[in-house]
Amino acid sequence: MNAFDTTNLGKEFSTYLPLPAKLDPHLEEALRHVLSTPGNLVRPRIVAQMAVAYGLAPAHAKDLAISLEYFHTASLLFDDLPCMDDASERRGLPCTHTVFGEAGAILAALALINRAYALSWRAAAGCPQSHQSRALTYLEQRLGVEGLLDGQSLDLHYAMLPHDCETNQRIASGKTVSLIRLALVFPAILGGASSRELQLLERIAMFWGLSYQIADDLKDVLQSTAETGKTGYRDSLLNRPNTALALGTSAAVERLQRLIRLGDATLARLTTLRPRVCFLGKLRNELQKEVTRLSEDACELAMTA
Amino acid sequence: MNAFDTTNLGKEFSTYLPLPAKLDPHLEEALRHVLSTPGNLVRPRIVAQMAVAYGLAPAHAKDLAISLEYFHTASLLFDDLPCMDDASERRGLPCTHTVFGEAGAILAALALINRAYALSWRAAAGCPQSHQSRALTYLEQRLGVEGLLDGQSLDLHYAMLPHDCETNQRIASGKTVSLIRLALVFPAILGGASSRELQLLERIAMFWGLSYQIADDLKDVLQSTAETGKTGYRDSLLNRPNTALALGTSAAVERLQRLIRLGDATLARLTTLRPRVCFLGKLRNELQKEVTRLSEDACELAMTA
Repeated sequence: MNAFDTTNLGKEFSTYLPLPAKLDPHLEEALRHVLSTPGNLVRPRIVAQMAVAYGLAPAHAKDLAISLEYFHTASLLFDDLPCMDDASERRGLPCTHTVFGEAGAILAALALINRAYALSWRAAAGCPQSHQSRALTYLEQRLGVEGLLDGQSLDLHYAMLPHDCETNQRIASGKTVSLIRLALVFPAILGGASSRELQLLERIAMFWGLSYQIADDLKDVLQSTAETGKTGYRDSLLNRPNTALALGTSAAVERLQRLIRLGDATLARLTTLRPRVCFLGKLRNELQKEVTRLSEDACELAMTA
Repeated sequence: MNAFDTTNLGKEFSTYLPLPAKLDPHLEEALRHVLSTPGNLVRPRIVAQMAVAYGLAPAHAKDLAISLEYFHTASLLFDDLPCMDDASERRGLPCTHTVFGEAGAILAALALINRAYALSWRAAAGCPQSHQSRALTYLEQRLGVEGLLDGQSLDLHYAMLPHDCETNQRIASGKTVSLIRLALVFPAILGGASSRELQLLERIAMFWGLSYQIADDLKDVLQSTAETGKTGYRDSLLNRPNTALALGTSAAVERLQRLIRLGDATLARLTTLRPRVCFLGKLRNELQKEVTRLSEDACELAMTA
């Protein structure tokens, strides 16, 4: 049904930001470090498949996929800085700023961002002109003061906010859901999706984005650094929003399961309108598997407590 | 000849990044601080006049002008961070990170960058399609690893490089000239300038960009913080490239005068091809006035030494 080959996205992640021969060696090394660890690539795979499902050419689908992954990676580089989450590990390796200095991490992140805008624009330029402006405005909104940056700033000042589910959800909507919305909705806008489809995709993004955030919160509470590949137990140390801490682990697991059910119902409606998005079912199953694992861990914790 | 009104660019600098009603107050305050101090606006005035000289509509000229000024301002916010130049004053006010924290300065800079790409796209989208892709590739090159970021990284690691004019020039080409090239060449590409015109504009950008850098270096050596509105005497403290330190002030003044003469000859050729760029002569005269002031200061310093 969906013939797009996503197996090379790891290679494309590493090569879509060509480094000039005469680049300052410090920046070059920092960028090579970042580009050599593409992460699990779940996100760019979704973007590429969404783009193809909405009729974009494979080259534009790849550009979009890598573009959004570069934005995501840059946000992690900033997130990990001492003035933000002060993390030491990411994707199983020392954080970029711990090896190449804060300036090295910042300049590497800016290089990714610059390339990401260029790749998004290149993909958009290959799509019908009538969709370009709407799609690029959507990109600006999700990444900017209405989206990711607002969420990140709230997250950093969580200590001064009420520690409740509403606040956590507002922060997750900015910080986590913005990039999931981009992954699902941005390619669909470029492909000329109907308003109804975009509305359903927005809801799926919200349900799944919040699910990912709660799963992440649970992992922070339940698992060690070795398992998650990033610095663990940080939310309580840093006073960051964490739904598993706010509600308790079993209530957080229940909330997660309810979000997945809501996502299922919405996805079923969308698949009727656009059968080619059926690949999203696989992603939903992976999310469910993770929830099952986390709920087992939560049960175990409850029994040993 | 050139009827474009640039008197409102200060207001446009402050309002072209609309802040949503429900923005995290920390990020909002940091952004209001940045947006309330537009600087001297020399750069956006050039961009807007260049754009009009090359036939762009006034609305697109303003978008481009503010876009490039947002990129420039964001680069200053990063530049001033403790991990880079660790400055305390900028545009006569305390640096953003000293008032709103490093994270606040970084998120404000990212908000400017996000808006700047959107404004550049919007301007490009209003121009003939055949010029868009070339112009946006040029934007990517000047801001990225081939331009500004390379210069910035070299600048930070100057201590490990030979302290000679060649190195200083390579760093200035990345760090300073990249943004001047954008100011002169980016609007001209969008307006369909000929190859010969672009070549002359590239040369003027190089001569003037290097001139501005040397003037800045001289100011760092000759003047106090009160006069330049930013933290002074930093280059020698931070081990940053400074042509006035490398050559001595009087040789630096001579070099500056030679660059201005080279710029004059190139501008004369360009004005024959495109009379509407004659406004650049005024800019050249302001640069010359500054050089005269600096050379008087240098003489005075030599006499009192």
